[in-house]
Amino acid sequence: MPVESRTTIREGRASDALRPLALERGVAEYAEGSCLVSFGKTRVLCTASVEPGVPGWRKGRGEGWITAEYAMLPRATRTRTPRERAQLGGRTQEIQRLIGRSIRAMLDDFRFGEHTLRVDCDVLQADGGTRTAAITGAAVAVADAFDAMSSAGVIPVSPVKRLVAAVSVGVVDGAPMLDLDYDEDVRAAVDMNVVMSGEGRFVEVQGTGEHGTFDRAELDALLDLAVSGIQQLQDAQRTARAGT
Amino acid sequence: MPVESRTTIREGRASDALRPLALERGVAEYAEGSCLVSFGKTRVLCTASVEPGVPGWRKGRGEGWITAEYAMLPRATRTRTPRERAQLGGRTQEIQRLIGRSIRAMLDDFRFGEHTLRVDCDVLQADGGTRTAAITGAAVAVADAFDAMSSAGVIPVSPVKRLVAAVSVGVVDGAPMLDLDYDEDVRAAVDMNVVMSGEGRFVEVQGTGEHGTFDRAELDALLDLAVSGIQQLQDAQRTARAGT
Amino acid sequence: MPVESRTTIREGRASDALRPLALERGVAEYAEGSCLVSFGKTRVLCTASVEPGVPGWRKGRGEGWITAEYAMLPRATRTRTPRERAQLGGRTQEIQRLIGRSIRAMLDDFRFGEHTLRVDCDVLQADGGTRTAAITGAAVAVADAFDAMSSAGVIPVSPVKRLVAAVSVGVVDGAPMLDLDYDEDVRAAVDMNVVMSGEGRFVEVQGTGEHGTFDRAELDALLDLAVSGIQQLQDAQRTARAGT
Amino acid sequence: MPVESRTTIREGRASDALRPLALERGVAEYAEGSCLVSFGKTRVLCTASVEPGVPGWRKGRGEGWITAEYAMLPRATRTRTPRERAQLGGRTQEIQRLIGRSIRAMLDDFRFGEHTLRVDCDVLQADGGTRTAAITGAAVAVADAFDAMSSAGVIPVSPVKRLVAAVSVGVVDGAPMLDLDYDEDVRAAVDMNVVMSGEGRFVEVQGTGEHGTFDRAELDALLDLAVSGIQQLQDAQRTARAGT
Amino acid sequence: MPVESRTTIREGRASDALRPLALERGVAEYAEGSCLVSFGKTRVLCTASVEPGVPGWRKGRGEGWITAEYAMLPRATRTRTPRERAQLGGRTQEIQRLIGRSIRAMLDDFRFGEHTLRVDCDVLQADGGTRTAAITGAAVAVADAFDAMSSAGVIPVSPVKRLVAAVSVGVVDGAPMLDLDYDEDVRAAVDMNVVMSGEGRFVEVQGTGEHGTFDRAELDALLDLAVSGIQQLQDAQRTARAGT
Amino acid sequence: MPVESRTTIREGRASDALRPLALERGVAEYAEGSCLVSFGKTRVLCTASVEPGVPGWRKGRGEGWITAEYAMLPRATRTRTPRERAQLGGRTQEIQRLIGRSIRAMLDDFRFGEHTLRVDCDVLQADGGTRTAAITGAAVAVADAFDAMSSAGVIPVSPVKRLVAAVSVGVVDGAPMLDLDYDEDVRAAVDMNVVMSGEGRFVEVQGTGEHGTFDRAELDALLDLAVSGIQQLQDAQRTARAGT
Repeated sequence: MPVESRTTIREGRASDALRPLALERGVAEYAEGSCLVSFGKTRVLCTASVEPGVPGWRKGRGEGWITAEYAMLPRATRTRTPRERAQLGGRTQEIQRLIGRSIRAMLDDFRFGEHTLRVDCDVLQADGGTRTAAITGAAVAVADAFDAMSSAGVIPVSPVKRLVAAVSVGVVDGAPMLDLDYDEDVRAAVDMNVVMSGEGRFVEVQGTGEHGTFDRAELDALLDLAVSGIQQLQDAQRTARAGT
Repeated sequence: MPVESRTTIREGRASDALRPLALERGVAEYAEGSCLVSFGKTRVLCTASVEPGVPGWRKGRGEGWITAEYAMLPRATRTRTPRERAQLGGRTQEIQRLIGRSIRAMLDDFRFGEHTLRVDCDVLQADGGTRTAAITGAAVAVADAFDAMSSAGVIPVSPVKRLVAAVSVGVVDGAPMLDLDYDEDVRAAVDMNVVMSGEGRFVEVQGTGEHGTFDRAELDALLDLAVSGIQQLQDAQRTARAGT
Repeated sequence: MPVESRTTIREGRASDALRPLALERGVAEYAEGSCLVSFGKTRVLCTASVEPGVPGWRKGRGEGWITAEYAMLPRATRTRTPRERAQLGGRTQEIQRLIGRSIRAMLDDFRFGEHTLRVDCDVLQADGGTRTAAITGAAVAVADAFDAMSSAGVIPVSPVKRLVAAVSVGVVDGAPMLDLDYDEDVRAAVDMNVVMSGEGRFVEVQGTGEHGTFDRAELDALLDLAVSGIQQLQDAQRTARAGT
Repeated sequence: MPVESRTTIREGRASDALRPLALERGVAEYAEGSCLVSFGKTRVLCTASVEPGVPGWRKGRGEGWITAEYAMLPRATRTRTPRERAQLGGRTQEIQRLIGRSIRAMLDDFRFGEHTLRVDCDVLQADGGTRTAAITGAAVAVADAFDAMSSAGVIPVSPVKRLVAAVSVGVVDGAPMLDLDYDEDVRAAVDMNVVMSGEGRFVEVQGTGEHGTFDRAELDALLDLAVSGIQQLQDAQRTARAGT
Repeated sequence: MPVESRTTIREGRASDALRPLALERGVAEYAEGSCLVSFGKTRVLCTASVEPGVPGWRKGRGEGWITAEYAMLPRATRTRTPRERAQLGGRTQEIQRLIGRSIRAMLDDFRFGEHTLRVDCDVLQADGGTRTAAITGAAVAVADAFDAMSSAGVIPVSPVKRLVAAVSVGVVDGAPMLDLDYDEDVRAAVDMNVVMSGEGRFVEVQGTGEHGTFDRAELDALLDLAVSGIQQLQDAQRTARAGT
Repeated sequence: MPVESRTTIREGRASDALRPLALERGVAEYAEGSCLVSFGKTRVLCTASVEPGVPGWRKGRGEGWITAEYAMLPRATRTRTPRERAQLGGRTQEIQRLIGRSIRAMLDDFRFGEHTLRVDCDVLQADGGTRTAAITGAAVAVADAFDAMSSAGVIPVSPVKRLVAAVSVGVVDGAPMLDLDYDEDVRAAVDMNVVMSGEGRFVEVQGTGEHGTFDRAELDALLDLAVSGIQQLQDAQRTARAGT
């Protein structure tokens, strides 16, 4: 896990620039698909695992299912965060539901037989944007896992119709800003996470103004910024996937 | 709980019309503030309770806190839904976090002393839009509770700066539609919940396209519809509050 | 939920008089049977839900089952009571077991096919006597649910053989008293809950003297008082049921 | 734990006779008070432990508290019963609340300083009547523990004003019967547990008719039987306590 | 549970002597096998219960399974220890896994049909060495349970090939010592538990030096001491088993 | 996390050879000490975090505490292993207790002020020997964290007196073998984990023979093998620490 080549001078970054980005495939030897994604200092290990069968409520239709889990290593954070044990926190549940919905938008249907594809996004280091990095990396891991299933003859063809990618935007110190790191996120008056498909359509738009409300013009500026950032992420995904 | 005066012929409703709306204040005799809100057949009992002290992480600043809980009675739904016990579901946690953030946007700061205002939104009957009804009713209950604290001399003046209200919109059968009931919600390709302040600014925008993605034009049309609906909700809130 | 018509001047009530009583049927639109019961300011929403199948330990006999749950809304009480989550309190479990046994005494057997009838008693407002109000209201909801099953042809005939009703009695300030409200309950030296069938036989007698013991004469006086009160409750049940 | 001297020919027992009874004090070397009680084959190990301090809600009054726990060894029963772990069953909670209330009735007040007396009733073998055996044995253990505290100078004098004892009665095969064993309990149409003080007053009366209701005459017959049984138990308690 | 005949003058015991030992079979009337074992003041009630079926992961092979649980009565200890409820402590889990592995070493295979043999070791009194006493007593209970199955014709022959027994050894005050009681255990610099088969081979060796490390010579001395102690335990097991 | 330089031809390894070993320090930017350890394909991320204060039971002595947690990423394993949530498994608890005891043996006392040093060992990839790799890596992370505290002036000098390291040995296919990978571990008749200090003394010896027992000669051979392996691990630790 050498990090030296990714060092970032955040201070010099333009407000519409992404942080240094890396997508490393195949890092988990046993998983059907995996991707270690870095958005600056944020590092998330995404794996996609194929399991036989589907949850009880989906049985008997001959269709599959995709679900996601999200967790942080205790010392991913600046001070240690205790592991979530008995009760998952609301933030964690929100994030893993968001990842699950986003990944499921990569398919038009679930006609790949009664398999469950389980996505695990484990944050090794957290410096803001962990959920958007997780979605961006998980999309690659999932596409790889479906390719592996298809190569192995488990399914005739991958059901993946498009990749998805995600980025955060926010109003920081009065200005719209792309891909917030932790310090920016804490200062943001408005915070928005946007997930888009490879076809340039929205999958999720979640804007929150706990430290201040926002008007239509601000909303529009944030969406513009997000769209431009996601296009760069999608280029990187394509490049990474091409390098098989 | 007589319901006859609220009977709704949903079929005849225009796509930009709210369902029949009712806001009944003071229904919970022991609570500092309460409001029974109906959006059509959806009925939510909202109470606001004042408790001394604040959570540990806020102690010592002389500031208060506002938090929310959301639950459904088991037979609020068409078929019985088991009570959530050991582990709150992700949907429930998402909703109560959304209600909490929305209600906190009614204040500019928490300088009302070390009191906790606890909002409980209990769904008596669920026909779609329970989270937006809950926010709209809770805003009234909370404003009443702060008025009660102020009348009782516990605080010099209510810290409430504005009400908030919320509505759902969605793309149903290809057309944008306001205030979805359960049947419409199930059919919606895109579903969006919007929370706005009385000053006409956004507090939250949450758009999801699990059964389909959406483009910028659709997003704009949904936002327009939400804004018009929320203005009607805010009129009803003012009328209800005026009738003290 | 207008309450004005039920206002009670408790001070003027005779020691052998019930509090103002109301039984409102059909308040939960989706439930097979429902009844909102008021004993003075105590208000309990009782629903009866029919579900296919029976618990594992009863399978294969072709018989049904009836079970009950009891809960309080957090602000049913004078100060807010936290929701019971991971571990149900002993008081709650005692009450829901008592409701279940009482309701099952309405039948001579469970030969109505492998259906489970689930009774939910949710206390909207608590001013003493919530368990006895719950039993009295649940009996009506359950009789209605079985009638609905029979009308729908799910079962040939309702298995209900009798209603049951319940009331609390106690020794307060040295004198036996009927249908205790919260203030009386707190002061009671002896507290007794009595459940009786429509045929005038006992289903449950639970007398407790934590703040003092009691002799046979006191026990007899309390039982007499309970019997007279339950007869009035049973008249009200019959009237409510007649007004279909 | 030799059991031979307690073998019982239940068949020959009169309907108003107790099963062979044993109260063995001091069996748990480390506990402040202990009593191994046998009602026939039912064997319960009761210990009373003194701990400094009281629960939070009682602090600052200078008063003590008494509380009880009840559990069964897994193989106390004819077929193995799993241990109760995360969630205590309703039956267990009911029983430990009943034991707690009964034992607290041994005192007129809790003015013995901020100590908690914790009663543990662990069923080694279960053949019906475990809760009544537990109360009868726990009363002895608790009296001994308070004597030990007084001898040790922790309190000036024991606050115990009276012992309590308990027995079950029921209508079995149409006839009232005292001190039911497991087979009788299963067959009982009506089942009643009665707790009385050494002064001959009732502490608790809990009668249940799940397999049939009961009238006033049956109730009276059961109470008579219980009173006679409890007097024998109280004689045995006095004898055991005298043999220090 | 008379204890007088087992009183121990620990002070006079040689460093290579066991504490007074007792193995009492058949103490739990309902269990297929049971043994109350005493190592000095340590007393553990061991039962072996036969249940139909095996855990899910073993189904379909026609083989059985053996598993163990370990618990302490709250007042087995010098000061009361709260019961373990939601989360089993690490120490408890370690011990019950050790007991399970040790008991399974009594068999060469599990070809006794799809039965589960459940061992329960409940500590009535704890004075050090509870896990080694539990293993030594459980071995007897399990052998008896398999004999009972075989006598009852459930299995043709007992699968037990050998007994196992266990003892603790440690370095106390600089010297190796056998069968540590609680006071010795607390002072021990090195603590080792050894489980051996009746054939004189090791099943488990667990040496720990939290308060100090140990060299090869100390390890050898401790093992020698353990071997000699276990031979005495195995003699006692054979004597107890012979006295059927 | 490039793995190519560590590829291992296990088949060619001598029975007394370690797998390819790597110790990478400083991989977790926010942690006071960290080490990514690889024993062949087994990869464990070890962090050491310093927190103010100590657990309640240690307060007031002016001494610190060291504790450890162990977990596996879900797809560290060949097939996905669900995350441990409400109840930690017995294996996990055993391992984290073992790591904690081993690391505490690096100090002679805890006189470094009321700080808690929390060790987290998260398995990224599991191919046997995760607990021994975790101990070996954690020792480095902990030594680094104490050095960091000392450099920062939080403590005058590091309390670390020695490193510890650990390795597994076993009898596989009849022969003693060092540092078992997963396939060897599954086949092992006897499995032993040994922890030693830098001074060549034993900290822990845990030998288990679930699939077969072992005699003194086998035990001696396994210990010899472990000692030789641990010396190589200690050399690697010293080299890694020297390269600051």
